Amino acid sequence: MSLIVQKFGGTSVQDINHIRHVAQRVIETKKQGHDVVVVLSAMAGETNRLIKLAHEANPDPDSREYDQLISTGEQVTIALLALCLQSLGQPARSFLGHQVKILTNSVHSRAKIQSIDATRIFETLKQNCVVIVAGFQGSDEAGNITTLGRGGSDTTAVAIAAALKANLCEIYTDVDGVYTTDPRICSDAKKLDKISFDEMMELASQGAQVLQMRSVVFAAKYGVKLVVRSSFNKNEGTLICKEDKPMEDVVVSGITLDEGEAKLALRRLPDRPGVASRIFLPVAKAGINVDMIVQNISADGFTDLTFTVPSNVLKETRKLIEKVGSEVGFDKIEADEDIAKVSIVGVGMRSHSGVAAKVFETLSQNKINIEMISTSEIRISVVVKKDFGKKAVMALHKAFDMAQV
Amino acid sequence: MSLIVQKFGGTSVQDINHIRHVAQRVIETKKQGHDVVVVLSAMAGETNRLIKLAHEANPDPDSREYDQLISTGEQVTIALLALCLQSLGQPARSFLGHQVKILTNSVHSRAKIQSIDATRIFETLKQNCVVIVAGFQGSDEAGNITTLGRGGSDTTAVAIAAALKANLCEIYTDVDGVYTTDPRICSDAKKLDKISFDEMMELASQGAQVLQMRSVVFAAKYGVKLVVRSSFNKNEGTLICKEDKPMEDVVVSGITLDEGEAKLALRRLPDRPGVASRIFLPVAKAGINVDMIVQNISADGFTDLTFTVPSNVLKETRKLIEKVGSEVGFDKIEADEDIAKVSIVGVGMRSHSGVAAKVFETLSQNKINIEMISTSEIRISVVVKKDFGKKAVMALHKAFDMAQV
Repeated sequence: MSLIVQKFGGTSVQDINHIRHVAQRVIETKKQGHDVVVVLSAMAGETNRLIKLAHEANPDPDSREYDQLISTGEQVTIALLALCLQSLGQPARSFLGHQVKILTNSVHSRAKIQSIDATRIFETLKQNCVVIVAGFQGSDEAGNITTLGRGGSDTTAVAIAAALKANLCEIYTDVDGVYTTDPRICSDAKKLDKISFDEMMELASQGAQVLQMRSVVFAAKYGVKLVVRSSFNKNEGTLICKEDKPMEDVVVSGITLDEGEAKLALRRLPDRPGVASRIFLPVAKAGINVDMIVQNISADGFTDLTFTVPSNVLKETRKLIEKVGSEVGFDKIEADEDIAKVSIVGVGMRSHSGVAAKVFETLSQNKINIEMISTSEIRISVVVKKDFGKKAVMALHKAFDMAQV
Repeated sequence: MSLIVQKFGGTSVQDINHIRHVAQRVIETKKQGHDVVVVLSAMAGETNRLIKLAHEANPDPDSREYDQLISTGEQVTIALLALCLQSLGQPARSFLGHQVKILTNSVHSRAKIQSIDATRIFETLKQNCVVIVAGFQGSDEAGNITTLGRGGSDTTAVAIAAALKANLCEIYTDVDGVYTTDPRICSDAKKLDKISFDEMMELASQGAQVLQMRSVVFAAKYGVKLVVRSSFNKNEGTLICKEDKPMEDVVVSGITLDEGEAKLALRRLPDRPGVASRIFLPVAKAGINVDMIVQNISADGFTDLTFTVPSNVLKETRKLIEKVGSEVGFDKIEADEDIAKVSIVGVGMRSHSGVAAKVFETLSQNKINIEMISTSEIRISVVVKKDFGKKAVMALHKAFDMAQV
């Protein structure tokens, strides 16, 4: 007998029929003799509906009240799943973040989990109950409700799997697993049987929607065995695990397209020590993830600094930087939302050379201009005009021969 | 400067525009120099939508999960009001039941408030904040979310007013105050300027929708000054207060119609001590309020026992009684939902005789058959066929000369 954490996303719980289907799937696992903890997202569309309401009430909503509001979506689905399971004869209990003491810091809307008290979960499992936990939410020490940011339910699932030392954490979604790229862009994209934590982190951080970045980091850190699979069929899914030898033979595992970022450029910044930290410290303190950072070489003691942030925090980031602007002294700040970021990822890059050259050549042949470049050991990312994003993905997918055969 | 608790019902917060209107009203009170604590219901229709979902998931929903589900409605409105107030420049903070420690017993769906910790509310008021508390909900000692039953937000408001020793508790609703009867039934019904706690309790317990029964009991017990008024205009409303001399001059203050009850009749019950208690004890333990109880005179050592309960717990009550049936030994149990209860209420009945006779005479003249009768010191209730309920109200309203002139 083992302990399995199963997380179901918004499209898997979009209405009562889908929730009942999830209940049946959970019962199948339970009948195989496993203890099951389920983590749920809100019904597809519900979180967006609540966000819209928040912005109607206040164009610049306070993040504490925002979290109080949008955390209701998961509360609805967990209670409904408990009711469905009970109607099928399976004892079940639902828990909100604060009811199983998912303690987070107080950075609302992108809070980080600090600890989970497994006691109540284990007690409930002992009673032959399926335990259902609201994804995406926790509470801080003062009892304020916090949320973990978009896709935070994945993180809840992995964090619970880590806290309970679960044997497996299954992320059920509306796709069969992790693909070489988004099948909506390349119809011949191939499902991967397995992928390393490192690659998955890079893919997730570069816009692959299938798993939230932080959940992969968590899984890697605590060695949680993670599977992504579809809630609509019984296909095997993709195993995310530690790197092994055969993975290195594949040069590129995946290509992502991220259209949700915006570019901020600071013009004529004094090129002296401490400037970058004075700019990025307040941004980091606000919990905003700056992604690509590019600094040009200096001329006359001045430089240009360009970086990308998620579009939804562009306004906030700009405000924070304008605040330190007079102190740091730069000419002006320019924002550009008309960008797309394309990234190719693969642990094979460590041992294969010429990958970057091939990327640049492919884009050049397709007349796609590169605005920014950034690389890691196993990733190459380029920023292009938004209109060219999909074309770039298709060209690279073909160039690196990633299609299914 | 005084402390005012303002409660707004579902129709007053049915969408963002209405919520913004509530925010403006709250700010007006704040600007007059008062501290304000606001208690909100869910958006009109939302609780019903959630109840429907619960029953789709499970025809016989577990009450803990049911409460977990339906308590989300108030969570949405309180956060939205906080956001609206903030957008209008008024600092505000919303709190869920467990965040201000509204401790209840564990009788889900009709829990009773045991205590409220005023500390966090006072701390927040000190920061010039409007405090917004979710109505209808609390949590038990284990941290499970409980709800207080239909109209429970009134109770939350009065309980908070009592706990904070507020100077006034205003219940804002979609009508101007308490009327002699439902104006939808008698268009010439008259708004009362004031009414005694005792009368209001009787009216509320007999189906007047304007205030929840338990909130009036609470207000009377703790001497909370209570006003019912409209959120859509500035009219004065109705003051609910201790009885005073002029009130006694009015024979009948109000007439109610309750179509939400059902009748249960136990046939050929052994007429011996302890039978009634064995029947009603499990019902009471389940937190079900039995209303009228009528027992016929005995024949051959057997009797018939009839009583009414809210229709929504008819099934549950019947189950409970069938369980003790074999033990008690009665012939059969009959349920009838085709009933309406009409009650007339007035403290003047204490000093005026002949009220009952006039009621019976009026109904007789209108060819309305009386199925059950029950009286209190200041109330006479009759059960009639559902079809005759409205007709009975209109006839009595006229006979007792209660119309506005």
